[in-house]
Amino acid sequence: MTDGTTGRYAGVRAAVIGTGLIGGSVLLRLAEAGLDVVGWDPDPATRERAQHRGVVAPATIEQAVAGRDVVFLCGPLPTLAGTLALVAELTAPGCVLTDVGSTKVEVAEAADRLGLTDRFVPGHPMAGAESAGLTAASPTLLAGAAWVLCPAPGAATDAFRWLTGLLVELFDARVVPMSASAHDSAAALASHVPHLLAGALAGATQRAPLRDAVLTLAAGSFSDGTRVAGTPAERTANMLLGNRDRVLHELDEVRGFLDGLAAALRADDAPALVARYAEARAARSALSGRRFVGQTREFAVDGDHDAEVTWLRGLGDVGGHLTGCQVDSGTVSYTAWLPVAD
Amino acid sequence: MTDGTTGRYAGVRAAVIGTGLIGGSVLLRLAEAGLDVVGWDPDPATRERAQHRGVVAPATIEQAVAGRDVVFLCGPLPTLAGTLALVAELTAPGCVLTDVGSTKVEVAEAADRLGLTDRFVPGHPMAGAESAGLTAASPTLLAGAAWVLCPAPGAATDAFRWLTGLLVELFDARVVPMSASAHDSAAALASHVPHLLAGALAGATQRAPLRDAVLTLAAGSFSDGTRVAGTPAERTANMLLGNRDRVLHELDEVRGFLDGLAAALRADDAPALVARYAEARAARSALSGRRFVGQTREFAVDGDHDAEVTWLRGLGDVGGHLTGCQVDSGTVSYTAWLPVAD
Repeated sequence: MTDGTTGRYAGVRAAVIGTGLIGGSVLLRLAEAGLDVVGWDPDPATRERAQHRGVVAPATIEQAVAGRDVVFLCGPLPTLAGTLALVAELTAPGCVLTDVGSTKVEVAEAADRLGLTDRFVPGHPMAGAESAGLTAASPTLLAGAAWVLCPAPGAATDAFRWLTGLLVELFDARVVPMSASAHDSAAALASHVPHLLAGALAGATQRAPLRDAVLTLAAGSFSDGTRVAGTPAERTANMLLGNRDRVLHELDEVRGFLDGLAAALRADDAPALVARYAEARAARSALSGRRFVGQTREFAVDGDHDAEVTWLRGLGDVGGHLTGCQVDSGTVSYTAWLPVAD
Repeated sequence: MTDGTTGRYAGVRAAVIGTGLIGGSVLLRLAEAGLDVVGWDPDPATRERAQHRGVVAPATIEQAVAGRDVVFLCGPLPTLAGTLALVAELTAPGCVLTDVGSTKVEVAEAADRLGLTDRFVPGHPMAGAESAGLTAASPTLLAGAAWVLCPAPGAATDAFRWLTGLLVELFDARVVPMSASAHDSAAALASHVPHLLAGALAGATQRAPLRDAVLTLAAGSFSDGTRVAGTPAERTANMLLGNRDRVLHELDEVRGFLDGLAAALRADDAPALVARYAEARAARSALSGRRFVGQTREFAVDGDHDAEVTWLRGLGDVGGHLTGCQVDSGTVSYTAWLPVAD
């Protein structure tokens, strides 16, 4: 990451629309890196707070996005399609648009309907906190995060390449290229179902006759397992509703495994319990212990976009990510990292 | 906590039987505080490791417990009843015995059958880690922990009082007095069910076609929600099996809340989802934000033991704890803390 005005992206004019926890963190990082960046939020108090933190925050969305090269859409999920249509109208065709929403199919379909797939790249940085708002935002919140971008075949690859380079340079991002539907399936298990389990554990505790004793005994397992139940309820509800069918599908899979654990417990079957926990532990070990091997992959800038996108999506599907994207004299060169099999 | 030889408990001779993560941490803290303490473990390599850390670790359990004033039983749950019977035989009637197992009814019933309720005080410090063994143990692991002790009516109150004072002085413990059955019900929600949910989430992920992409996208919610799935599988299985019926009952309650969340999601019912998450969030807020008020409660040392135990258990049931127990000239004086209602 660079702390002064950046080389390749020096002079880029950016805007962030919706400056809550994630948008505010994008805004603060871009400002810290010396980019010409402005933030806008529908809430006047939030705009004032942004100004107090030294960021330009004009009064209208029109002023915020005028003449910008890239706009990050960071408002609540249900507002994204409307904001996308508005911002597209207010900006030039060369302005790259992206979002940071936690589900991708809905907004990708909206972009398709609006004819914006050539310059809108659906995005999702995998970071956050149960806190909310610009006051909780930080220029380092997204540093080094896995950041999903969804490349679309055809001309959209240009926007994807440019944005990948920017996120790597300014956020030290590990860019994970995926189709919107693969993202939503993986995110259902990686984030959305965990929110359901946390809500169920905290909710059942709230109703328990021994609630106060449970809270006193709460060990790390309880504290960790309920943490995201502290997320603002509307944000969680929007996230789940925005990915409803995939979340319900993955929840069924998790319930299936839970049924197996409960059946082994009910049957006093220690070997079956141990075997299932050994299986679960393998995923946990892989989470902390995976190794990656690097490779460089080149494509012609004006070559077979479909082949490039197929390779990119395949990389994300197997858990890989990008840490570089250079475009030089007709060649685009990706630095890719693939997990080594356990 | 005291770092030299302690005042009130100076000269106490202690033994720790089973020196894994928890037992090892008890052992290292007692040694650090200057007590005359020895550790014993059935594994010769573990005994050698204890000696390398400067602790006396004799070759036999007989040598370890001979002449001791207090013995902490810290072996695996299925071994506790047998070890309790053996150590009781090897020690004088005045030697206080306790354990650190994660379920309490089974071992309390074993003590009752063995006629040891006058000197065995079932215990459970609410701390741990997904790591295991003496190498992961630390003199500070249990510092400030909520530490359940189960007082039995009658003569056993003496042992409870003495041990409470020792844990407060040497571990800065918040001693939570509960009946064994109330402990096991509360611990089912506070620790055991969270282990089931973590196992289910990690296990379903291990089986998912997009496993590697899920791990790449894994946000804090997934990492936190699966952490205890990294616990050694046999330890988790023993814990669940040792509290089977209560765990299955509390799991049903959690599933009930989960069913409600899933039904609201399936019905696209945002207000119902938000309402349920607001309920869940209340438990989470109480976890981090509870305030406590202190009180002192006195009993005659040789007075109505049943009334004392009833008060103690009631304190634990409502989420309270003890930070002091002094016995002076015929009076026992407890320093108690009660949570203030939300």
